[in-house]
Amino acid sequence: MVDLVVSEVGPRDGLQNIDYILPTQDKCRWIEALAAAGLREIEVGSCVSPKAVPQMADTPEVAAFARRLNTEIAILIPNLKGLKRALTANPQKISIPFSVSETHSLKNLNRTHAQMLDGVEEICAYLRTLPADERPEFEGGLSTAFGCTLEGPVPEDRVVTLAEQLMAAGCDGVGLADTTGYANPAQVRRLIRRVKAAVGEQNLSSVHLHNTRGQGLANALAALEEGITTLDSSMAGLGGCPFAPGASGNIVTEDLVFMLEAMGLNTGIDYDGLIRARELLQKLLPKAVELYGFTPAAGLPKGLCIRGDSQGDSLYVASPG
Amino acid sequence: MVDLVVSEVGPRDGLQNIDYILPTQDKCRWIEALAAAGLREIEVGSCVSPKAVPQMADTPEVAAFARRLNTEIAILIPNLKGLKRALTANPQKISIPFSVSETHSLKNLNRTHAQMLDGVEEICAYLRTLPADERPEFEGGLSTAFGCTLEGPVPEDRVVTLAEQLMAAGCDGVGLADTTGYANPAQVRRLIRRVKAAVGEQNLSSVHLHNTRGQGLANALAALEEGITTLDSSMAGLGGCPFAPGASGNIVTEDLVFMLEAMGLNTGIDYDGLIRARELLQKLLPKAVELYGFTPAAGLPKGLCIRGDSQGDSLYVASPG
Repeated sequence: MVDLVVSEVGPRDGLQNIDYILPTQDKCRWIEALAAAGLREIEVGSCVSPKAVPQMADTPEVAAFARRLNTEIAILIPNLKGLKRALTANPQKISIPFSVSETHSLKNLNRTHAQMLDGVEEICAYLRTLPADERPEFEGGLSTAFGCTLEGPVPEDRVVTLAEQLMAAGCDGVGLADTTGYANPAQVRRLIRRVKAAVGEQNLSSVHLHNTRGQGLANALAALEEGITTLDSSMAGLGGCPFAPGASGNIVTEDLVFMLEAMGLNTGIDYDGLIRARELLQKLLPKAVELYGFTPAAGLPKGLCIRGDSQGDSLYVASPG
Repeated sequence: MVDLVVSEVGPRDGLQNIDYILPTQDKCRWIEALAAAGLREIEVGSCVSPKAVPQMADTPEVAAFARRLNTEIAILIPNLKGLKRALTANPQKISIPFSVSETHSLKNLNRTHAQMLDGVEEICAYLRTLPADERPEFEGGLSTAFGCTLEGPVPEDRVVTLAEQLMAAGCDGVGLADTTGYANPAQVRRLIRRVKAAVGEQNLSSVHLHNTRGQGLANALAALEEGITTLDSSMAGLGGCPFAPGASGNIVTEDLVFMLEAMGLNTGIDYDGLIRARELLQKLLPKAVELYGFTPAAGLPKGLCIRGDSQGDSLYVASPG
């Protein structure tokens, strides 16, 4: 039992943002290394239009491989068609991105909020027809929840209302995503409290944070202290951010795991295994792809071990007196 | 009145770690730009042996210039000799680094804890002979307080005891420094609580954090929430860290100011002015010196202004409903 689930989204959010298609076999090798390092949840890909996102065309095969590993797998879908493709791999978790900014929703998916909600209802109706053991958990991911590059600030009341509507439409839970790297820790605390109050403590369990302005881990800390139990992150901060050179995309798994374990929380992750997965990734990707992360460069503090069982960190957790 | 003092340590901690001596006139131009951006406290240099740290040889002249600007100035000293040089500029604040790791203290300054405490008493005795208007505030800075690259974990009891001894020796206050970038947020919270309980709430007001493992802002958030009112940081994370390529040294002023202001705290700092000071710095330094920071690359979120008066951020602080 882990204290906190680090959900690795690199194979989806990372790879889809790189101008290179990682071959199926290489994806599988990397995901295998991630699972071996102890990652308990991996977003292995998305079932979207292969024309729009060719990097994700092989998601069903990758997912079918990953499903046999010792980890839970998640797949992102935009609609019912995507769901049906995703279900061929029998994933434990499915999520749909739902942009709080309607401008962004229209620009990105050409759908209004009302159209998006119809789509969610359709998906939920379909999921209810499945036998229980084939039915994945279905999460509505509220993207641009902390602000939008098109609209600017996003009203918190709207986030709360949409969270309620997603639950009413039949989602098993909602997540909050800082798609644009706009969030600050006070906002993270406030919005989590408000959404939990509206949809119920257990129905908001995950946040998806970006590190575009360097606030990723501070926001993760705030989320953690507000009772969030699943934090998305990406190995090597993979994906980058085209308009912000030097700014990683998602928060960096390696730095997040160091933070959590050094704080005495059990993630189930073996740090050496994580570094091996990173080294493999570096070999598999073109040299031009920049890998982020501070801890891999600096190494762990002297005397700290992260072995996946939260025993090695006692010197840092308790006062050695 | 600001909610939080961002103490800019770049002219000291940053420049002393660069293999280039910034000319006195250039230092003054940069410090002038920092003060113009609204930084209320600037550590302008150190009065240490010019042979050991040639980058700081001109600290008295730089300090004398900075003393006339609209900011408070701080100078780091190792001993009474350094104090006397520093006092020629009549600074508002003086600090002495005191390594909690005795191994580090011996290696760095060739002094035991007992010898260091004798030195602090000598300094305090000298300061007491000065007229009140010439007497700077004197802070004992507990370095390696969160762990040491030589000793590994540092006992928290020892940090607490040394904090008490520094106060007993006559310091006006103590600070905690994560010299090695080892700290995690739980440890930051715990140690601040323990030291405050031992020496009094008001006698621990500052922390000095590094970003070596990417934890800088998360640790700053923890410190802030434990009532710390002065946070050291360095423009562009200047200084770097020789053993960790890509890892900035101190926490980055630009990213810290974004975090604090976006959270609704007033730092008194004008973000555009900060960027102007950064651009000047970039011009003054050799091209090989890497400047860190995510926010300068990404820009502020749409709709957020940081003008030094905490009025522009209301859209992000309050719910726009």
